[in-house]
Amino acid sequence: MAKLEEIKGFFMDLQDRICGGLEELDGSGTKFVQDLWERPGGGGGRTRVFAGGDVIVKGGVNFSHVHGPMPAKIANKLKLDEGAQFHATGVSIVLHPLNPYVPIIHSNVRYFEVEGGTFWFGGGIDVTPAYIDLEQGRAFHQLMKDTCDKTDSAYYPKFKKWADDYFYLPHRNETRGIGGIFFDHLRTDKDKHFQFVQDVGNAFVPSYRPLVEQNRVKAYGQRELDWQLHRRSRYVEFNLVHDAGTKFGLETGGRTESILMSMPPMASWGYAYAPEPDTPEAETQSLLKPMEWVPIHV
Amino acid sequence: MAKLEEIKGFFMDLQDRICGGLEELDGSGTKFVQDLWERPGGGGGRTRVFAGGDVIVKGGVNFSHVHGPMPAKIANKLKLDEGAQFHATGVSIVLHPLNPYVPIIHSNVRYFEVEGGTFWFGGGIDVTPAYIDLEQGRAFHQLMKDTCDKTDSAYYPKFKKWADDYFYLPHRNETRGIGGIFFDHLRTDKDKHFQFVQDVGNAFVPSYRPLVEQNRVKAYGQRELDWQLHRRSRYVEFNLVHDAGTKFGLETGGRTESILMSMPPMASWGYAYAPEPDTPEAETQSLLKPMEWVPIHV
Repeated sequence: MAKLEEIKGFFMDLQDRICGGLEELDGSGTKFVQDLWERPGGGGGRTRVFAGGDVIVKGGVNFSHVHGPMPAKIANKLKLDEGAQFHATGVSIVLHPLNPYVPIIHSNVRYFEVEGGTFWFGGGIDVTPAYIDLEQGRAFHQLMKDTCDKTDSAYYPKFKKWADDYFYLPHRNETRGIGGIFFDHLRTDKDKHFQFVQDVGNAFVPSYRPLVEQNRVKAYGQRELDWQLHRRSRYVEFNLVHDAGTKFGLETGGRTESILMSMPPMASWGYAYAPEPDTPEAETQSLLKPMEWVPIHV
Repeated sequence: MAKLEEIKGFFMDLQDRICGGLEELDGSGTKFVQDLWERPGGGGGRTRVFAGGDVIVKGGVNFSHVHGPMPAKIANKLKLDEGAQFHATGVSIVLHPLNPYVPIIHSNVRYFEVEGGTFWFGGGIDVTPAYIDLEQGRAFHQLMKDTCDKTDSAYYPKFKKWADDYFYLPHRNETRGIGGIFFDHLRTDKDKHFQFVQDVGNAFVPSYRPLVEQNRVKAYGQRELDWQLHRRSRYVEFNLVHDAGTKFGLETGGRTESILMSMPPMASWGYAYAPEPDTPEAETQSLLKPMEWVPIHV
Protein backbone atom coordinates (compact mmCIF):
# COMPACT_ATOMS: atom_id res chain seq x y z
CA MET A 1 0.00 0.00 0.00
CA ALA A 2 1.09 3.53 -0.82
CA LYS A 3 2.87 5.20 2.07
CA LEU A 4 2.70 8.85 3.11
CA GLU A 5 6.19 9.56 1.79
CA GLU A 6 5.32 8.18 -1.62
CA ILE A 7 2.11 10.21 -1.79
CA LYS A 8 3.88 13.36 -0.62
CA GLY A 9 6.63 12.75 -3.16
CA PHE A 10 4.06 12.51 -5.93
CA PHE A 11 2.50 15.82 -4.86
CA MET A 12 5.85 17.62 -4.76
CA ASP A 13 6.78 16.31 -8.17
CA LEU A 14 3.30 17.18 -9.47
CA GLN A 15 3.75 20.77 -8.29
CA ASP A 16 7.07 20.95 -10.16
CA ARG A 17 5.61 19.53 -13.34
CA ILE A 18 2.48 21.70 -13.26
CA CYS A 19 4.52 24.87 -12.67
CA GLY A 20 6.78 23.92 -15.57
CA GLY A 21 3.80 23.12 -17.79
CA LEU A 22 2.08 26.41 -16.97
CA GLU A 23 5.21 28.48 -17.54
CA GLU A 24 5.55 26.87 -20.95
CA LEU A 25 1.83 27.37 -21.70
CA ASP A 26 1.97 31.02 -20.64
CA GLY A 27 5.02 31.48 -22.84
CA SER A 28 5.94 34.95 -21.62
CA GLY A 29 9.10 33.89 -19.81
CA THR A 30 7.47 34.77 -16.50
CA LYS A 31 8.35 32.27 -13.77
CA PHE A 32 6.64 31.12 -10.62
CA VAL A 33 8.04 32.71 -7.46
CA GLN A 34 8.38 30.41 -4.48
CA ASP A 35 7.55 31.24 -0.88
CA LEU A 36 8.59 28.60 1.64
CA TRP A 37 6.74 28.62 4.93
CA GLU A 38 6.66 26.60 8.09
CA ARG A 39 3.70 25.77 10.26
CA PRO A 40 4.42 26.37 13.96
CA GLY A 41 2.68 23.10 14.92
CA GLY A 42 4.59 21.02 12.35
CA GLY A 43 5.23 20.91 8.61
CA GLY A 44 4.87 23.70 6.10
CA GLY A 45 4.62 24.37 2.42
CA ARG A 46 5.90 25.63 -0.88
CA THR A 47 3.60 28.38 -2.09
CA ARG A 48 4.34 29.24 -5.72
CA VAL A 49 2.77 32.30 -7.21
CA PHE A 50 2.66 33.59 -10.76
CA ALA A 51 1.87 37.18 -11.65
CA GLY A 52 1.74 39.25 -14.79
CA GLY A 53 2.13 36.61 -17.47
CA ASP A 54 0.73 36.79 -21.00
CA VAL A 55 -2.04 34.32 -20.16
CA ILE A 56 -2.13 34.13 -16.37
CA VAL A 57 -2.36 37.45 -14.57
CA LYS A 58 -2.44 35.95 -11.06
CA GLY A 59 -2.18 32.37 -9.96
CA GLY A 60 -0.80 29.96 -7.45
CA VAL A 61 0.26 26.34 -7.37
CA ASN A 62 0.71 25.39 -3.73
CA PHE A 63 2.13 22.30 -2.14
CA SER A 64 1.81 21.75 1.57
CA HIS A 65 2.42 19.03 4.11
CA VAL A 66 1.28 19.85 7.60
CA HIS A 67 1.43 17.46 10.52
CA GLY A 68 1.60 17.18 14.29
CA PRO A 69 -0.93 16.70 17.07
CA MET A 70 -4.39 17.56 15.81
CA PRO A 71 -5.56 21.01 16.94
CA ALA A 72 -8.92 21.05 18.74
CA LYS A 73 -10.63 23.07 16.02
CA ILE A 74 -9.66 20.61 13.31
CA ALA A 75 -10.46 17.58 15.47
CA ASN A 76 -13.94 18.94 16.20
CA LYS A 77 -14.61 19.64 12.54
CA LEU A 78 -13.49 16.20 11.44
CA LYS A 79 -14.92 14.40 14.47
CA LEU A 80 -11.52 12.96 15.29
CA ASP A 81 -9.52 12.90 18.51
CA GLU A 82 -7.81 16.10 19.56
CA GLY A 83 -4.08 15.60 19.85
CA ALA A 84 -3.92 12.55 17.57
CA GLN A 85 -0.99 12.71 15.15
CA PHE A 86 -2.20 13.71 11.70
CA HIS A 87 -0.75 14.45 8.28
CA ALA A 88 -2.41 16.50 5.55
CA THR A 89 -0.69 16.99 2.23
CA GLY A 90 -1.69 18.09 -1.23
CA VAL A 91 -1.46 20.49 -4.12
CA SER A 92 -3.97 23.25 -4.78
CA ILE A 93 -4.16 25.50 -7.80
CA VAL A 94 -6.10 28.59 -8.85
CA LEU A 95 -5.28 30.49 -12.04
CA HIS A 96 -6.79 33.85 -12.98
CA PRO A 97 -6.24 34.65 -16.66
CA LEU A 98 -5.85 38.06 -18.27
CA ASN A 99 -8.06 37.51 -21.31
CA PRO A 100 -11.76 37.35 -20.35
CA TYR A 101 -12.24 34.50 -22.81
CA VAL A 102 -9.80 32.25 -20.97
CA PRO A 103 -11.56 30.55 -18.02
CA ILE A 104 -10.41 30.56 -14.42
CA ILE A 105 -9.34 27.05 -13.42
CA HIS A 106 -9.11 25.49 -9.97
CA SER A 107 -7.81 22.12 -8.90
CA ASN A 108 -6.87 20.35 -5.74
CA VAL A 109 -5.52 16.91 -4.90
CA ARG A 110 -5.05 15.99 -1.27
CA TYR A 111 -4.39 13.22 1.19
CA PHE A 112 -5.16 13.08 4.89
CA GLU A 113 -4.22 10.49 7.48
CA VAL A 114 -4.43 10.21 11.22
CA GLU A 115 -2.69 7.72 13.48
CA GLY A 116 -4.63 4.51 13.87
CA GLY A 117 -5.16 3.85 10.17
CA THR A 118 -7.76 6.44 9.15
CA PHE A 119 -6.96 8.08 5.81
CA TRP A 120 -8.69 9.57 2.79
CA PHE A 121 -8.04 11.21 -0.56
CA GLY A 122 -9.90 14.13 -2.07
CA GLY A 123 -9.62 16.52 -4.98
CA GLY A 124 -11.01 17.64 -8.30
CA ILE A 125 -10.72 20.06 -11.20
CA ASP A 126 -13.29 22.69 -12.15
CA VAL A 127 -13.51 25.54 -14.62
CA THR A 128 -15.09 29.00 -14.36
CA PRO A 129 -15.41 30.78 -17.70
CA ALA A 130 -16.62 34.37 -17.94
CA TYR A 131 -17.88 33.31 -21.37
CA ILE A 132 -19.11 29.73 -21.58
CA ASP A 133 -18.26 27.97 -24.84
CA LEU A 134 -20.38 24.83 -25.11
CA GLU A 135 -17.96 22.91 -27.29
CA GLN A 136 -15.03 23.68 -25.00
CA GLY A 137 -17.16 22.71 -22.01
CA ARG A 138 -17.97 19.36 -23.58
CA ALA A 139 -14.31 18.69 -24.39
CA PHE A 140 -13.27 19.55 -20.82
CA HIS A 141 -15.93 17.30 -19.32
CA GLN A 142 -15.04 14.52 -21.76
CA LEU A 143 -11.47 14.65 -20.51
CA MET A 144 -12.72 14.54 -16.91
CA LYS A 145 -14.88 11.54 -17.79
CA ASP A 146 -12.01 9.76 -19.55
CA THR A 147 -9.79 10.41 -16.52
CA CYS A 148 -12.42 8.99 -14.18
CA ASP A 149 -13.27 6.03 -16.40
CA LYS A 150 -9.70 4.73 -16.19
CA THR A 151 -10.40 3.90 -12.54
CA ASP A 152 -14.16 3.44 -12.30
CA SER A 153 -17.00 4.24 -14.71
CA ALA A 154 -19.19 5.19 -11.76
CA TYR A 155 -16.85 8.03 -10.81
CA TYR A 156 -17.60 10.65 -13.45
CA PRO A 157 -21.38 10.82 -12.92
CA LYS A 158 -20.91 10.84 -9.17
CA PHE A 159 -18.06 13.34 -9.01
CA LYS A 160 -19.52 15.58 -11.73
CA LYS A 161 -22.72 15.88 -9.70
CA TRP A 162 -20.65 16.49 -6.57
CA ALA A 163 -18.95 19.42 -8.32
CA ASP A 164 -22.32 20.79 -9.49
CA ASP A 165 -23.64 20.62 -5.94
CA TYR A 166 -20.46 22.02 -4.38
CA PHE A 167 -19.63 24.89 -6.74
CA TYR A 168 -23.03 26.49 -6.33
CA LEU A 169 -23.96 29.91 -4.93
CA PRO A 170 -27.42 29.59 -3.35
CA HIS A 171 -27.68 33.35 -2.74
CA ARG A 172 -27.19 33.93 -6.48
CA ASN A 173 -28.97 30.77 -7.62
CA GLU A 174 -26.15 30.03 -10.05
CA THR A 175 -23.22 27.66 -10.37
CA ARG A 176 -19.72 29.10 -10.12
CA GLY A 177 -18.90 27.98 -13.66
CA ILE A 178 -19.22 24.81 -15.71
CA GLY A 179 -18.11 22.54 -12.87
CA GLY A 180 -15.93 19.52 -13.49
CA ILE A 181 -15.27 16.85 -10.87
CA PHE A 182 -15.08 17.02 -7.08
CA PHE A 183 -14.54 14.15 -4.67
CA ASP A 184 -13.62 13.58 -1.05
CA HIS A 185 -13.27 10.79 1.53
CA LEU A 186 -12.00 8.16 -0.91
CA ARG A 187 -10.84 5.64 1.67
CA THR A 188 -11.81 2.10 0.79
CA ASP A 189 -8.95 1.09 -1.51
CA LYS A 190 -5.76 3.04 -0.94
CA ASP A 191 -3.85 1.99 -4.03
CA LYS A 192 -6.80 2.43 -6.36
CA HIS A 193 -7.60 5.83 -4.92
CA PHE A 194 -3.99 6.99 -5.01
CA GLN A 195 -3.81 5.97 -8.65
CA PHE A 196 -6.97 7.96 -9.34
CA VAL A 197 -5.62 11.06 -7.56
CA GLN A 198 -2.43 10.76 -9.64
CA ASP A 199 -4.52 10.57 -12.81
CA VAL A 200 -6.46 13.67 -11.79
CA GLY A 201 -3.30 15.60 -10.94
CA ASN A 202 -1.71 14.60 -14.21
CA ALA A 203 -4.83 15.66 -16.14
CA PHE A 204 -4.60 19.23 -14.91
CA VAL A 205 -2.30 20.75 -17.54
CA PRO A 206 -3.86 18.79 -20.42
CA SER A 207 -7.31 19.98 -19.32
CA TYR A 208 -6.26 23.64 -19.24
CA ARG A 209 -4.12 23.66 -22.37
CA PRO A 210 -6.97 23.74 -24.93
CA LEU A 211 -8.89 26.31 -22.88
CA VAL A 212 -5.84 28.56 -23.03
CA GLU A 213 -4.81 27.88 -26.60
CA GLN A 214 -8.29 28.29 -28.09
CA ASN A 215 -9.08 31.51 -26.25
CA ARG A 216 -5.90 33.45 -25.60
CA VAL A 217 -5.85 35.08 -29.01
CA LYS A 218 -9.45 36.29 -28.91
CA ALA A 219 -9.83 40.06 -29.02
CA TYR A 220 -11.62 41.81 -26.19
CA GLY A 221 -12.39 45.32 -24.99
CA GLN A 222 -13.77 47.17 -21.98
CA ARG A 223 -17.10 45.38 -22.21
CA GLU A 224 -15.53 41.94 -21.83
CA LEU A 225 -13.22 43.21 -19.07
CA ASP A 226 -16.20 44.64 -17.17
CA TRP A 227 -18.02 41.33 -17.41
CA GLN A 228 -14.90 39.47 -16.27
CA LEU A 229 -14.65 41.79 -13.22
CA HIS A 230 -18.30 41.09 -12.45
CA ARG A 231 -17.92 37.32 -12.78
CA ARG A 232 -14.82 37.43 -10.60
CA SER A 233 -16.91 39.01 -7.83
CA ARG A 234 -19.00 35.84 -7.82
CA TYR A 235 -15.78 33.83 -7.55
CA VAL A 236 -14.86 35.89 -4.47
CA GLU A 237 -18.32 35.37 -2.99
CA PHE A 238 -18.15 31.63 -3.52
CA ASN A 239 -14.69 31.28 -2.01
CA LEU A 240 -15.33 33.47 1.03
CA VAL A 241 -18.95 32.50 1.78
CA HIS A 242 -19.17 28.86 0.72
CA ASP A 243 -15.89 27.16 -0.02
CA ALA A 244 -15.37 24.60 2.71
CA GLY A 245 -11.59 24.48 2.20
CA THR A 246 -11.23 28.25 2.53
CA LYS A 247 -13.43 28.42 5.62
CA PHE A 248 -11.69 25.44 7.18
CA GLY A 249 -8.28 26.94 6.47
CA LEU A 250 -9.09 30.38 7.84
CA GLU A 251 -10.88 29.05 10.92
CA THR A 252 -8.13 26.60 11.82
CA GLY A 253 -5.31 29.11 11.50
CA GLY A 254 -4.03 28.09 8.09
CA ARG A 255 -1.61 30.37 6.24
CA THR A 256 -3.87 33.19 5.08
CA GLU A 257 -1.84 34.27 2.06
CA SER A 258 -1.66 30.71 0.72
CA ILE A 259 -5.37 30.15 1.24
CA LEU A 260 -6.40 33.47 -0.27
CA MET A 261 -4.08 33.28 -3.26
CA SER A 262 -7.34 32.05 -4.82
CA MET A 263 -8.69 35.62 -4.83
CA PRO A 264 -8.73 37.35 -8.22
CA PRO A 265 -6.39 40.28 -8.86
CA MET A 266 -9.38 42.61 -9.19
CA ALA A 267 -13.15 42.25 -8.94
CA SER A 268 -16.13 44.58 -9.13
CA TRP A 269 -19.58 44.73 -7.60
CA GLY A 270 -22.38 46.78 -9.14
CA TYR A 271 -25.80 47.01 -7.54
CA ALA A 272 -28.16 44.55 -9.27
CA TYR A 273 -25.74 44.23 -12.19
CA ALA A 274 -27.23 42.04 -14.91
CA PRO A 275 -26.37 41.52 -18.59
CA GLU A 276 -28.57 42.93 -21.35
CA PRO A 277 -30.88 40.33 -22.93
CA ASP A 278 -29.66 38.55 -26.07
CA THR A 279 -25.97 39.17 -25.43
CA PRO A 280 -23.13 36.67 -24.99
CA GLU A 281 -23.04 37.70 -21.32
CA ALA A 282 -26.74 36.86 -20.90
CA GLU A 283 -26.14 33.53 -22.61
CA THR A 284 -23.40 32.64 -20.14
CA GLN A 285 -25.62 33.74 -17.27
CA SER A 286 -28.35 31.39 -18.51
CA LEU A 287 -25.89 28.48 -18.57
CA LEU A 288 -24.80 28.83 -14.93
CA LYS A 289 -26.74 25.74 -13.86
CA PRO A 290 -25.99 22.02 -13.80
CA MET A 291 -25.70 20.80 -17.40
CA GLU A 292 -25.30 17.41 -19.01
CA TRP A 293 -22.06 18.02 -20.86
CA VAL A 294 -21.29 14.52 -22.06
CA PRO A 295 -23.48 11.42 -22.40
CA ILE A 296 -23.26 9.15 -19.39
CA HIS A 297 -23.81 5.44 -19.76
CA VAL A 298 -23.73 3.97 -16.29
CA MET B 1 -44.00 52.37 25.48
CA ALA B 2 -42.91 52.85 21.88
CA LYS B 3 -44.92 50.73 19.47
CA LEU B 4 -43.71 48.99 16.33
CA GLU B 5 -45.41 51.51 14.06
CA GLU B 6 -43.72 54.42 15.80
CA ILE B 7 -40.30 52.76 15.56
CA LYS B 8 -40.84 51.83 11.93
CA GLY B 9 -42.01 55.38 11.23
CA PHE B 10 -38.81 56.75 12.73
CA PHE B 11 -36.68 54.44 10.55
CA MET B 12 -38.51 55.43 7.36
CA ASP B 13 -38.13 59.10 8.17
CA LEU B 14 -34.49 58.55 9.12
CA GLN B 15 -33.83 56.96 5.73
CA ASP B 16 -35.39 60.01 4.01
CA ARG B 17 -33.35 62.45 6.07
CA ILE B 18 -30.07 60.56 5.65
CA CYS B 19 -30.53 60.27 1.88
CA GLY B 20 -31.27 63.99 1.71
CA GLY B 21 -28.28 64.82 3.89
CA LEU B 22 -25.94 62.66 1.82
CA GLU B 23 -27.15 64.09 -1.48
CA GLU B 24 -26.48 67.55 -0.13
CA LEU B 25 -23.08 66.49 1.23
CA ASP B 26 -22.08 64.85 -2.05
CA GLY B 27 -23.15 68.02 -3.88
CA SER B 28 -22.93 66.62 -7.40
CA GLY B 29 -26.67 66.64 -8.03
CA THR B 30 -26.64 62.84 -8.10
CA LYS B 31 -29.72 61.35 -6.42
CA PHE B 32 -30.42 58.09 -4.68
CA VAL B 33 -32.33 55.61 -6.84
CA GLN B 34 -35.01 53.63 -5.06
CA ASP B 35 -35.77 49.94 -5.50
CA LEU B 36 -38.91 48.73 -3.75
CA TRP B 37 -39.08 45.05 -2.98
CA GLU B 38 -41.44 42.65 -1.26
CA ARG B 39 -40.59 39.64 0.82
CA PRO B 40 -42.65 36.59 -0.16
CA GLY B 41 -43.18 35.67 3.52
CA GLY B 42 -44.30 39.20 4.50
CA GLY B 43 -43.06 42.77 4.40
CA GLY B 44 -40.35 44.23 2.19
CA GLY B 45 -38.09 47.21 1.85
CA ARG B 46 -36.93 50.39 0.21
CA THR B 47 -33.40 49.87 -1.06
CA ARG B 48 -31.84 53.19 -2.07
CA VAL B 49 -28.59 53.17 -3.96
CA PHE B 50 -26.25 55.97 -4.93
CA ALA B 51 -23.67 55.65 -7.68
CA GLY B 52 -21.17 57.92 -9.35
CA GLY B 53 -21.31 60.99 -7.12
CA ASP B 54 -18.47 63.41 -6.51
CA VAL B 55 -17.84 62.00 -3.02
CA ILE B 56 -19.67 58.67 -2.94
CA VAL B 57 -18.92 56.31 -5.79
CA LYS B 58 -21.19 53.52 -4.54
CA GLY B 59 -23.47 53.42 -1.55
CA GLY B 60 -26.77 52.32 -0.18
CA VAL B 61 -29.19 53.48 2.50
CA ASN B 62 -31.71 50.70 2.99
CA PHE B 63 -34.90 50.56 4.97
CA SER B 64 -36.69 47.27 5.49
CA HIS B 65 -39.53 45.88 7.53
CA VAL B 66 -40.00 42.14 7.24
CA HIS B 67 -42.56 40.16 9.20
CA GLY B 68 -44.61 36.98 9.24
CA PRO B 69 -44.24 33.54 10.79
CA MET B 70 -40.62 32.97 11.75
CA PRO B 71 -38.76 30.74 9.25
CA ALA B 72 -37.07 27.70 10.78
CA LYS B 73 -33.55 28.93 9.90
CA ILE B 74 -34.07 32.24 11.69
CA ALA B 75 -35.81 30.61 14.66
CA ASN B 76 -32.94 28.17 15.11
CA LYS B 77 -30.35 30.94 14.93
CA LEU B 78 -32.16 33.11 17.45
CA LYS B 79 -33.32 30.20 19.62
CA LEU B 80 -36.95 31.28 19.23
CA ASP B 81 -40.05 29.32 18.21
CA GLU B 82 -40.47 28.48 14.55
CA GLY B 83 -43.66 29.97 13.18
CA ALA B 84 -44.01 32.66 15.87
CA GLN B 85 -45.02 36.02 14.38
CA PHE B 86 -41.99 38.33 14.18
CA HIS B 87 -41.12 41.80 12.94
CA ALA B 88 -37.66 43.04 12.02
CA THR B 89 -37.16 46.61 10.86
CA GLY B 90 -34.26 48.97 10.48
CA VAL B 91 -31.98 51.10 8.34
CA SER B 92 -28.56 50.02 7.14
CA ILE B 93 -25.99 52.11 5.36
CA VAL B 94 -22.66 51.53 3.61
CA LEU B 95 -20.93 54.28 1.64
CA HIS B 96 -17.87 53.75 -0.54
CA PRO B 97 -16.17 57.03 -1.40
CA LEU B 98 -14.22 57.89 -4.54
CA ASN B 99 -11.31 59.72 -2.90
CA PRO B 100 -9.02 57.29 -1.01
CA TYR B 101 -8.70 59.85 1.79
CA VAL B 102 -12.44 59.77 2.54
CA PRO B 103 -13.24 56.79 4.79
CA ILE B 104 -15.85 54.13 4.13
CA ILE B 105 -18.67 54.44 6.66
CA HIS B 106 -21.17 51.85 7.82
CA SER B 107 -24.15 52.17 10.10
CA ASN B 108 -27.15 50.18 11.12
CA VAL B 109 -30.07 50.76 13.47
CA ARG B 110 -32.58 47.98 13.92
CA TYR B 111 -35.48 46.69 15.97
CA PHE B 112 -36.73 43.14 16.34
CA GLU B 113 -39.79 41.81 18.09
CA VAL B 114 -41.57 38.50 18.32
CA GLU B 115 -45.07 37.78 19.61
CA GLY B 116 -45.19 37.28 23.36
CA GLY B 117 -43.28 40.43 24.28
CA THR B 118 -39.67 39.66 23.30
CA PHE B 119 -37.98 42.60 21.57
CA TRP B 120 -34.56 44.18 21.18
CA PHE B 121 -32.73 47.05 19.54
CA GLY B 122 -29.32 46.96 17.90
CA GLY B 123 -27.09 49.13 15.77
CA GLY B 124 -23.94 51.21 15.55
CA ILE B 125 -21.73 53.38 13.38
CA ASP B 126 -18.16 52.54 12.34
CA VAL B 127 -15.57 54.02 10.02
CA THR B 128 -12.99 52.37 7.74
CA PRO B 129 -10.35 54.77 6.43
CA ALA B 130 -7.77 53.69 3.87
CA TYR B 131 -5.61 56.38 5.51
CA ILE B 132 -6.12 56.78 9.24
CA ASP B 133 -5.97 60.38 10.47
CA LEU B 134 -5.59 60.36 14.25
CA GLU B 135 -7.22 63.72 14.84
CA GLN B 136 -10.22 62.83 12.69
CA GLY B 137 -10.46 59.49 14.46
CA ARG B 138 -10.54 61.21 17.83
CA ALA B 139 -13.24 63.65 16.68
CA PHE B 140 -15.36 60.80 15.32
CA HIS B 141 -15.04 58.81 18.54
CA GLN B 142 -15.76 61.91 20.63
CA LEU B 143 -19.03 62.32 18.74
CA MET B 144 -19.84 58.66 19.35
CA LYS B 145 -19.08 59.12 23.04
CA ASP B 146 -21.21 62.26 23.26
CA THR B 147 -24.06 60.44 21.53
CA CYS B 148 -23.80 57.54 23.97
CA ASP B 149 -23.38 59.76 27.04
CA LYS B 150 -26.76 61.38 26.45
CA THR B 151 -28.34 58.05 27.42
CA ASP B 152 -25.78 56.30 29.61
CA SER B 153 -22.13 57.02 30.35
CA ALA B 154 -21.45 53.28 30.48
CA TYR B 155 -22.48 52.87 26.84
CA TYR B 156 -19.48 54.32 24.98
CA PRO B 157 -16.78 52.17 26.65
CA LYS B 158 -18.93 49.07 26.30
CA PHE B 159 -20.10 49.65 22.73
CA LYS B 160 -16.71 50.94 21.55
CA LYS B 161 -15.11 47.70 22.75
CA TRP B 162 -17.93 45.72 21.14
CA ALA B 163 -17.11 47.40 17.82
CA ASP B 164 -13.38 46.68 18.27
CA ASP B 165 -14.17 43.02 18.95
CA TYR B 166 -16.73 42.74 16.16
CA PHE B 167 -14.98 44.57 13.31
CA TYR B 168 -11.89 42.40 13.53
CA LEU B 169 -10.37 40.06 10.93
CA PRO B 170 -8.65 37.24 12.83
CA HIS B 171 -7.11 35.80 9.66
CA ARG B 172 -5.42 39.16 9.01
CA ASN B 173 -4.90 40.06 12.67
CA GLU B 174 -6.20 43.55 12.02
CA THR B 175 -9.30 45.62 12.71
CA ARG B 176 -11.46 46.62 9.75
CA GLY B 177 -10.87 50.29 10.45
CA ILE B 178 -11.02 52.62 13.44
CA GLY B 179 -14.23 51.10 14.79
CA GLY B 180 -16.88 53.21 16.44
CA ILE B 181 -19.79 51.76 18.38
CA PHE B 182 -21.69 48.50 18.02
CA PHE B 183 -24.52 47.22 20.22
CA ASP B 184 -27.21 44.56 20.16
CA HIS B 185 -29.94 43.03 22.33
CA LEU B 186 -30.86 46.27 24.13
CA ARG B 187 -34.07 45.02 25.69
CA THR B 188 -34.45 46.12 29.29
CA ASP B 189 -35.98 49.59 28.86
CA LYS B 190 -37.83 50.07 25.61
CA ASP B 191 -38.27 53.85 25.69
CA LYS B 192 -34.68 54.50 26.78
CA HIS B 193 -33.28 52.17 24.15
CA PHE B 194 -35.49 53.57 21.41
CA GLN B 195 -34.33 57.07 22.33
CA PHE B 196 -30.73 55.88 22.12
CA VAL B 197 -31.26 54.28 18.72
CA GLN B 198 -32.83 57.54 17.50
CA ASP B 199 -29.80 59.46 18.75
CA VAL B 200 -27.45 57.07 16.94
CA GLY B 201 -29.45 57.30 13.72
CA ASN B 202 -29.51 61.06 13.92
CA ALA B 203 -25.75 61.16 14.56
CA PHE B 204 -24.96 59.45 11.27
CA VAL B 205 -24.79 62.43 8.91
CA PRO B 206 -23.05 64.70 11.46
CA SER B 207 -20.45 61.98 12.05
CA TYR B 208 -19.69 61.58 8.34
CA ARG B 209 -19.82 65.25 7.38
CA PRO B 210 -16.37 66.26 8.75
CA LEU B 211 -14.78 63.08 7.36
CA VAL B 212 -16.05 64.07 3.92
CA GLU B 213 -15.42 67.79 4.13
CA GLN B 214 -11.88 67.49 5.48
CA ASN B 215 -10.76 64.86 2.99
CA ARG B 216 -12.67 65.26 -0.27
CA VAL B 217 -10.36 67.93 -1.62
CA LYS B 218 -7.13 66.02 -0.95
CA ALA B 219 -5.15 65.18 -4.08
CA TYR B 220 -4.39 61.54 -4.83
CA GLY B 221 -2.86 59.42 -7.55
CA GLN B 222 -2.45 55.80 -8.60
CA ARG B 223 -0.58 54.93 -5.42
CA GLU B 224 -3.45 55.99 -3.18
CA LEU B 225 -5.98 54.31 -5.47
CA ASP B 226 -4.01 51.05 -5.35
CA TRP B 227 -3.95 51.17 -1.56
CA GLN B 228 -7.67 51.91 -1.46
CA LEU B 229 -8.34 48.87 -3.70
CA HIS B 230 -6.22 46.76 -1.36
CA ARG B 231 -7.99 48.00 1.78
CA ARG B 232 -11.35 47.42 0.12
CA SER B 233 -10.40 43.76 -0.34
CA ARG B 234 -10.22 43.51 3.45
CA TYR B 235 -13.65 45.09 3.64
CA VAL B 236 -14.94 42.36 1.32
CA GLU B 237 -13.23 39.68 3.39
CA PHE B 238 -14.73 40.99 6.61
CA ASN B 239 -18.25 41.23 5.21
CA LEU B 240 -18.27 37.84 3.51
CA VAL B 241 -16.30 35.83 6.07
CA HIS B 242 -17.21 37.42 9.39
CA ASP B 243 -20.09 39.85 9.34
CA ALA B 244 -22.93 38.23 11.25
CA GLY B 245 -25.60 40.33 9.55
CA THR B 246 -24.40 39.41 6.06
CA LYS B 247 -24.13 35.72 6.89
CA PHE B 248 -27.51 35.73 8.62
CA GLY B 249 -29.11 37.51 5.68
CA LEU B 250 -27.66 35.24 3.02
CA GLU B 251 -28.36 32.05 4.95
CA THR B 252 -31.94 32.95 5.75
CA GLY B 253 -32.86 33.91 2.21
CA GLY B 254 -32.64 37.69 2.57
CA ARG B 255 -32.59 39.89 -0.53
CA THR B 256 -29.08 39.33 -1.87
CA GLU B 257 -28.70 42.64 -3.72
CA SER B 258 -29.75 44.63 -0.65
CA ILE B 259 -27.40 42.69 1.62
CA LEU B 260 -24.44 42.85 -0.75
CA MET B 261 -24.86 46.53 -1.62
CA SER B 262 -22.15 46.73 1.07
CA MET B 263 -19.57 45.41 -1.41
CA PRO B 264 -17.16 48.00 -2.81
CA PRO B 265 -17.38 48.97 -6.48
CA MET B 266 -13.94 47.46 -7.07
CA ALA B 267 -11.32 45.67 -4.95
CA SER B 268 -7.95 44.05 -5.56
CA TRP B 269 -5.98 41.19 -4.07
CA GLY B 270 -2.24 40.88 -4.47
CA TYR B 271 -0.31 37.95 -3.07
CA ALA B 272 1.25 38.96 0.26
CA TYR B 273 0.67 42.62 -0.54
CA ALA B 274 2.16 44.83 2.17
CA PRO B 275 3.06 48.52 2.32
CA GLU B 276 6.67 49.71 2.21
CA PRO B 277 8.07 50.62 5.64
CA ASP B 278 7.89 54.28 6.70
CA THR B 279 5.04 55.20 4.39
CA PRO B 280 1.58 56.56 5.18
CA GLU B 281 0.19 53.18 4.14
CA ALA B 282 2.43 51.38 6.65
CA GLU B 283 1.36 53.83 9.34
CA THR B 284 -2.30 53.04 8.72
CA GLN B 285 -1.51 49.33 8.72
CA SER B 286 0.15 49.73 12.14
CA LEU B 287 -2.96 51.47 13.51
CA LEU B 288 -5.39 48.68 12.58
CA LYS B 289 -5.77 47.55 16.17
CA PRO B 290 -7.99 48.59 19.08
CA MET B 291 -6.99 52.12 20.13
CA GLU B 292 -8.00 54.42 22.95
CA TRP B 293 -9.32 57.32 20.90
CA VAL B 294 -10.85 59.44 23.65
CA PRO B 295 -10.37 59.42 27.42
CA ILE B 296 -12.96 57.35 29.21
CA HIS B 297 -14.00 58.21 32.75
CA VAL B 298 -16.40 55.51 33.86
